[in-house]
Amino acid sequence: MKLPKGFLFSAIQSGIKKNKLDLGCIVCGSAASAVGFFTKNKNVSYSVTVSKQHINNPVKAVMVNSGNANCFSHPQGQRDTQGICEAFAAQLGVKKENILIASTGIIGKKLPWHTVKLALPSLVDALGDDFDKFAKCIMTTDTFPKKAQATIRTGGGEIASIVGCAKGAGMIAPNMATLLVFILTDARLPKPLLRTIMKEALDKSFNSITIDGCTSTNDTLLLLSSNQVAIKGNKAIQEFRAQVSRVCLDLAKSIVRDGEGASKFIEIEIAGAKTEAEAKKAGLAIANSDLFKCAVYGANPNWGRIVQALGQADIAVSEKVKIRLSDLTKKDITVYVDLKRGKAQWTAYTCDLTPEYVKINAEYS
Amino acid sequence: MKLPKGFLFSAIQSGIKKNKLDLGCIVCGSAASAVGFFTKNKNVSYSVTVSKQHINNPVKAVMVNSGNANCFSHPQGQRDTQGICEAFAAQLGVKKENILIASTGIIGKKLPWHTVKLALPSLVDALGDDFDKFAKCIMTTDTFPKKAQATIRTGGGEIASIVGCAKGAGMIAPNMATLLVFILTDARLPKPLLRTIMKEALDKSFNSITIDGCTSTNDTLLLLSSNQVAIKGNKAIQEFRAQVSRVCLDLAKSIVRDGEGASKFIEIEIAGAKTEAEAKKAGLAIANSDLFKCAVYGANPNWGRIVQALGQADIAVSEKVKIRLSDLTKKDITVYVDLKRGKAQWTAYTCDLTPEYVKINAEYS
Repeated sequence: MKLPKGFLFSAIQSGIKKNKLDLGCIVCGSAASAVGFFTKNKNVSYSVTVSKQHINNPVKAVMVNSGNANCFSHPQGQRDTQGICEAFAAQLGVKKENILIASTGIIGKKLPWHTVKLALPSLVDALGDDFDKFAKCIMTTDTFPKKAQATIRTGGGEIASIVGCAKGAGMIAPNMATLLVFILTDARLPKPLLRTIMKEALDKSFNSITIDGCTSTNDTLLLLSSNQVAIKGNKAIQEFRAQVSRVCLDLAKSIVRDGEGASKFIEIEIAGAKTEAEAKKAGLAIANSDLFKCAVYGANPNWGRIVQALGQADIAVSEKVKIRLSDLTKKDITVYVDLKRGKAQWTAYTCDLTPEYVKINAEYS
Repeated sequence: MKLPKGFLFSAIQSGIKKNKLDLGCIVCGSAASAVGFFTKNKNVSYSVTVSKQHINNPVKAVMVNSGNANCFSHPQGQRDTQGICEAFAAQLGVKKENILIASTGIIGKKLPWHTVKLALPSLVDALGDDFDKFAKCIMTTDTFPKKAQATIRTGGGEIASIVGCAKGAGMIAPNMATLLVFILTDARLPKPLLRTIMKEALDKSFNSITIDGCTSTNDTLLLLSSNQVAIKGNKAIQEFRAQVSRVCLDLAKSIVRDGEGASKFIEIEIAGAKTEAEAKKAGLAIANSDLFKCAVYGANPNWGRIVQALGQADIAVSEKVKIRLSDLTKKDITVYVDLKRGKAQWTAYTCDLTPEYVKINAEYS
């Protein structure tokens, strides 16, 4: 994996979880440009609130914990979160305004700040180039770390690099979507362009997946650029754009493949919609239907549930609509629906709903 | 069970299902006044379309089948449905415009019209006062028939009666909600008043329950009055109103108790909302959260998922919000949430999400 220049990583066991990696950070030697997208849920973690306050500053480091959502646990949560940013900033010799923070785990339990503070020196000591270990420390019910990468010929003879990691598994709905995603690059591009490229990639990836239709309180996607490799010319920009999209789609698909309890990966291709928005709505309506997802689990081609889901999403279809299901006994399923109303298309991704999903979420606390 | 005057019932095995009651009817000697509420799903069964066309006429009979939704199966579905109404009307010596029809079962398979037509003479022959058998013939994955009743002192010394039956189990979402409901009375009231009373009862019962958040293509609620017992004075009207609400709430709760795979009945009381609409939205957001419903199944008081569900429904709450869960190891669960934003209240009802729900819906076809 060719890491982008200008980043260091760390991941340790701080004690939030028992004998598991639970605290990590990304440090940017020279300040990085950051673009952030956050959950649309109206009740958000203190970490999201603080990161939103800091996102427009140059970024020196990102701190991440798993095992606790740092959300809705006590009235001083936001003040405490600023406090931990301050302590981490002091450890690095930077200002707290240059720190971003992201959390994932259970909602409503107080994050053990003292434990985290005591672990900060070890966290900084462990800084190095172990991106894989960082990708592991953000996992919760994930069964494997999600990583993706790409390289771009810059037009100046150099190679720029993109790496990304994500965590998912549950409480995944497309608005924004997925719990935590970090995309790192050394490609230098104007920040508004970075934002446009990231938004486009987000819409077709993390905003097109769903596992259980539940939008998390903690969703955070950060794109950081260390700006160390200049991107020259439109061709290189377009390549960068395409690669960011690919990296995001790879990560988003990995999240779906590792959906809680999932036994099947479902790609839902909608064609013949009046608009892209309608196609996306149709795809996600099917992807969010518990009944349809149970049918896929049971390899039961009950396509009536597709018609039901479309109608519930206010999409009236006639008997002319074309519905094609691939072999439902396989692990990878494709659902193709031609609405016969227009020319717009969209693809959504989900997994089946299984007894295992219920068991995992009956026990998670 | 004191049946309202003026109705006859029938239920037979016509052959749509194997060795099970699958065809029934209600016949009104003198024409009944009818009030109907139908699914909000944009893709509806042919039976719903035809009943909507006939609902404002005096009603002579209602025909019902289970085992097939009569929906999205062939381009001539609506014409065929009018045809079966015509055949049934001929059998009874009435006009097809005075027939209502309701169906429940799998979507997308052609209803065997020939089988049904052949069974019509037996259906009419079997007419009698066996309301219980009628309540059974509308069942699909229901494990027991849902019935409720009430009597009203009319103010004229007479007793008016209300009986209701319903089927539920799956594809139940609050908009309108539940597959099939029939409320029968002999109380004579002006039709606009009947409609107002029915709508009010519907909102607090079938529109406040959810099993899987999936709005069926076939939801049909019919209130029929044979008009044989005059209701006199405001006191009697208010009693009728209260009893219609109670009958509907009893039926709605029975549907939730018999939700597919359900092991627990969950009552979600929202208080302190700004408006009733907000309270209802909050209650149903929690009731529709797969994650919360899994937590209840596992007797796991993960109330963070309530905060998550509220925020997803655009309801921002502060740490002052009060959340109380009754003992989750019991069969009947109460969730009390005081939003601390105002004075409005609403109660929603749901069941837990269990591995059994997934299994039932993996196999249903």
